[in-house]
Amino acid sequence: MSFEDVRALLFDVFGTCVDWRGTVIREGNALNRAKGLSVDWGAFADEWRGQYAPNMQRVMRGELPWTRLDGLHRMALDELLAKYGVQGLSEAEKDQLNRVWHRLDPWTDTVPGLLKLKHSYLIAPLSNGNLSLLTNMAKHAGLPWDCVLSAELFRAYKPDPRVYLGAVDLLDLQPHQVMMVAAHKHDLHAARAQGLQAAFVPRPFEGNPERVPDLTPDPEFEVVAADFMDLARQLGG
Amino acid sequence: MSFEDVRALLFDVFGTCVDWRGTVIREGNALNRAKGLSVDWGAFADEWRGQYAPNMQRVMRGELPWTRLDGLHRMALDELLAKYGVQGLSEAEKDQLNRVWHRLDPWTDTVPGLLKLKHSYLIAPLSNGNLSLLTNMAKHAGLPWDCVLSAELFRAYKPDPRVYLGAVDLLDLQPHQVMMVAAHKHDLHAARAQGLQAAFVPRPFEGNPERVPDLTPDPEFEVVAADFMDLARQLGG
Repeated sequence: MSFEDVRALLFDVFGTCVDWRGTVIREGNALNRAKGLSVDWGAFADEWRGQYAPNMQRVMRGELPWTRLDGLHRMALDELLAKYGVQGLSEAEKDQLNRVWHRLDPWTDTVPGLLKLKHSYLIAPLSNGNLSLLTNMAKHAGLPWDCVLSAELFRAYKPDPRVYLGAVDLLDLQPHQVMMVAAHKHDLHAARAQGLQAAFVPRPFEGNPERVPDLTPDPEFEVVAADFMDLARQLGG
Repeated sequence: MSFEDVRALLFDVFGTCVDWRGTVIREGNALNRAKGLSVDWGAFADEWRGQYAPNMQRVMRGELPWTRLDGLHRMALDELLAKYGVQGLSEAEKDQLNRVWHRLDPWTDTVPGLLKLKHSYLIAPLSNGNLSLLTNMAKHAGLPWDCVLSAELFRAYKPDPRVYLGAVDLLDLQPHQVMMVAAHKHDLHAARAQGLQAAFVPRPFEGNPERVPDLTPDPEFEVVAADFMDLARQLGG
């Protein structure tokens, strides 16, 4: 197995392609000014993102019916607005805020790197974000996907094997012909367990700056790249 | 209901966006030269395409298990190669020929029209072609889709209502916010029956030139356009 076999690159999105924390802070600060609020949107973003994994796990354990990520984001948002004492937002304003996840900004290397990689590979997201979220984000951020693959298509959330294998099947490829690209090792380990290849692209500025992410290379991964331009150089894309 | 509500345009692909007949003839004639064959590829293309509807109906009646369009194309191809006396193609050559449907060329107005429409609308195919076929075709032809929607995602073939309603659900829209664009009235009637809007774009050069297609306007459709540039003008896209 060599990465010369690779035909398609599947990208984790939140954190790997786009800067969720910076975007939530920027839009939140604009809301502070518009509404006379004084929310600490860095802390708010961290808590909002923090409820993502446990809420997905509730779905996967069957404690919640299938719920797309927009719905999980909204459950968490309603709790956090109460916790942070934010009152007086209309339903339309809450919906607009919830859809900040559709409007996340890319890292500076994301679009130029994807454009280079697209010359040689089929490129698609493989994210727990729902299909409309990922499609709206691609329009907003100019992400030049060849198609949009979402965990929603398989009614399961990563790291469930059905998501990785379902994507490989829709692409009509073999697992070793597909490489998962992510800033998060657990996503890559889950992909490799299903026979996909893995590229680790650490994103040191993804999370709360006071938390040090695990950026150490892992010899298990086929590629470790500094950013998407470096990934394109290493893959010859 | 007005087409001012429309947020997303879903496109039929074979015949509406791409010229299946012209492309099969061109690639087939190249195969004639390479292999010393004398196949009439216009007739071959018409018969190949002609087996599409009855084979899909066999799937939808449960006489065949779920089979993606690549598989239905291959069943028909094997029959037609025998009927036309084409012998001596390797498995790789047959597979390559079967994938001509992944390499169909667009009509001249298709890409410029889609680029204009993409400024104002979410644009996606909604085709009976499988997802990998549609994605490979988009790369080949430069079709600038925002996402790729295929009947394969719903394990049903148009005109089954699940295909239209499944696409609307994945886009998180209401049916009247979605407009189906097609050169075929039966597709548009099926979409309208589920509450979608409809744009008829006749493609007089789609089929066998000896067969006159039904190009008469139908007052039931919200839009009738001469081509995709005209569609963009009418929709203000």
